[in-house]
Amino acid sequence: MNVIPVILAGGSGTRLWPLSNEEKPKQFHNITGEGTLLELTINRLKPLNPDFCLIVTARMYEEMSYDELKKTGLKGSIISEPMPRNTAPAILYAATYLSKLYDDAIMLILPADHYIKKTDVFVTILKKAIEHAHNNHLVTIGITPTYPETGYGYIKAYDDPSEVKPVEMFVEKPNLETAKKYLREGNYFWNSGIFVWKISVILEYYQKLMPKLYQSFQPLRDLTVEQLTQNDELPWEIKRNVFSQIEAISIDYGIMEKADQRYVIPGEFGWADLGSWASIDDVLSPNTDMNRSPYPEKVIFHLSKNCTVFPDTKLIAVVGLHDVVVVDSGNEILVMDKNASQDLREVVNRIKNNR
Amino acid sequence: MNVIPVILAGGSGTRLWPLSNEEKPKQFHNITGEGTLLELTINRLKPLNPDFCLIVTARMYEEMSYDELKKTGLKGSIISEPMPRNTAPAILYAATYLSKLYDDAIMLILPADHYIKKTDVFVTILKKAIEHAHNNHLVTIGITPTYPETGYGYIKAYDDPSEVKPVEMFVEKPNLETAKKYLREGNYFWNSGIFVWKISVILEYYQKLMPKLYQSFQPLRDLTVEQLTQNDELPWEIKRNVFSQIEAISIDYGIMEKADQRYVIPGEFGWADLGSWASIDDVLSPNTDMNRSPYPEKVIFHLSKNCTVFPDTKLIAVVGLHDVVVVDSGNEILVMDKNASQDLREVVNRIKNNR
Repeated sequence: MNVIPVILAGGSGTRLWPLSNEEKPKQFHNITGEGTLLELTINRLKPLNPDFCLIVTARMYEEMSYDELKKTGLKGSIISEPMPRNTAPAILYAATYLSKLYDDAIMLILPADHYIKKTDVFVTILKKAIEHAHNNHLVTIGITPTYPETGYGYIKAYDDPSEVKPVEMFVEKPNLETAKKYLREGNYFWNSGIFVWKISVILEYYQKLMPKLYQSFQPLRDLTVEQLTQNDELPWEIKRNVFSQIEAISIDYGIMEKADQRYVIPGEFGWADLGSWASIDDVLSPNTDMNRSPYPEKVIFHLSKNCTVFPDTKLIAVVGLHDVVVVDSGNEILVMDKNASQDLREVVNRIKNNR
Repeated sequence: MNVIPVILAGGSGTRLWPLSNEEKPKQFHNITGEGTLLELTINRLKPLNPDFCLIVTARMYEEMSYDELKKTGLKGSIISEPMPRNTAPAILYAATYLSKLYDDAIMLILPADHYIKKTDVFVTILKKAIEHAHNNHLVTIGITPTYPETGYGYIKAYDDPSEVKPVEMFVEKPNLETAKKYLREGNYFWNSGIFVWKISVILEYYQKLMPKLYQSFQPLRDLTVEQLTQNDELPWEIKRNVFSQIEAISIDYGIMEKADQRYVIPGEFGWADLGSWASIDDVLSPNTDMNRSPYPEKVIFHLSKNCTVFPDTKLIAVVGLHDVVVVDSGNEILVMDKNASQDLREVVNRIKNNR
């Protein structure tokens, strides 16, 4: 059965402001110095020899998405959402499109903006997930937690020695105490947002668990394959009508929390969701003073430790500082204590409100 | 007797790097938001109604100097040194030029890169100095010290109740212990580099105390007034020859330390030599969190205290930091702990050596 990666690249988060912003969100940035996150996400899949990749994004990111796709040399299609409605509609949109091309196939749902260090391990796990998806199960990849993170959702597996474990439940972001408990108890995994299933299977779950959403999608099912990828007046108007009437809802909440036949495959492959400037340190190699930069030739660290610097065109000198992040990007420069990462949202809001 | 301000604007210090650099040193920067330091230095002299101002600078700063002069609306001439040779040759150069225009006049020697807050007080003191210079004395302005600064030279006055005090000696930059002793003892003043004297008097001192330098200047005395301000081939070649053969030496060391008839007028007029990023705080108004910027509309301070930010074209957000200086200027960005100001020289050297 064909395997089609579906890459969700419509996010416009500002947790990595000012590098990531609405004009150019983080999936289109080369944060690690190895390539853009979207490019790396696609390249990582090459060992699977997919027919093509499907990218689901926003209209304003189509051109950037094509550019990244082109870099990888893989074939691909892009479908654009008229407005962001979270992952359940995005994945239904992708399944609707793919069901017009294939009698059935296996979809790999992958966020475009995560970092994975150990590609080999990751691909091995994906292959296992693909194999298991043939049983008509919903398969997700869980990240073996290394510390009590409170920013992720968790998946609790039944105590089962096999590699592919049945899921007991999906749980929301815990507080620190609960996260510590999860770590102690074991069988809890970080929800990576990576899912593997057959088109036919997920469409059945949508009909059963999200019938209203499934019904709302009828006008899209009535479009041709070509129309689904086009942004011409008529098909776009139809898409806009559908998306403006549906609720924003995640696949976790809409399907995964309620479905039976859910399985998780735990993995340790150097995964990072790059959700804050502090978390970026996980993917950048430190120098002897624990300072980091993807472009060290454009940075001077002097009497400084544990600082992380993202230069743009200008040289950046960091003198006598500890635990500071400096980001020069676009029209803005951020200079922040690493421990204040969680206060960034307020800063971005202040700037938005001043415009 | 005419009063001619002579403004020494040839310095190319890097203590305020990256704002101040060889291409555009600090006298040409608007550091306080009120105007460039050279512009402010000239404007400050308007109450004295000078015939014109003489600016002594380097050839590469002539155009910038003219631009600043123009802003003030005062008349002026500019003479350029072929290479920096410290203040004794610069002042002799100015005196040589002025002696061709005036039988005699009073010269006010003023550094171009100092900040003075209380212009009224300053002008009153200058007037006193001018009055006293008529007695054929060398007059200098001393700054009443407010703390034991180790970065300045000191002038020790004889214990004398009059406003114009005879000088006992000029002393080099002290260590902290000595500086504290000076403050306790009183009668010690910071050497401001501001001098007032007749052209005829200072030329006599040069003949007597720096006869070799005076002799070396003969080819310049043989030039016409016009030639002295010109950078044409022949006069420039003559200037280049003279300057390349003379030693770099300060007026303090060459004349003031050895002269008799030296007087100091102490003053408190909000003087600052802006010799380090930490010292800039003296001339910028703090907000309620003690954060400072000459362009606060281009800065967001969030959960930050006692930070100082010099934006260029980009908005700068400072988050969760204390005592940090951020300077965006030219091709470089500096992010520095305020207490590391003294380590900046090493950073600038590292950058120079890497080129």
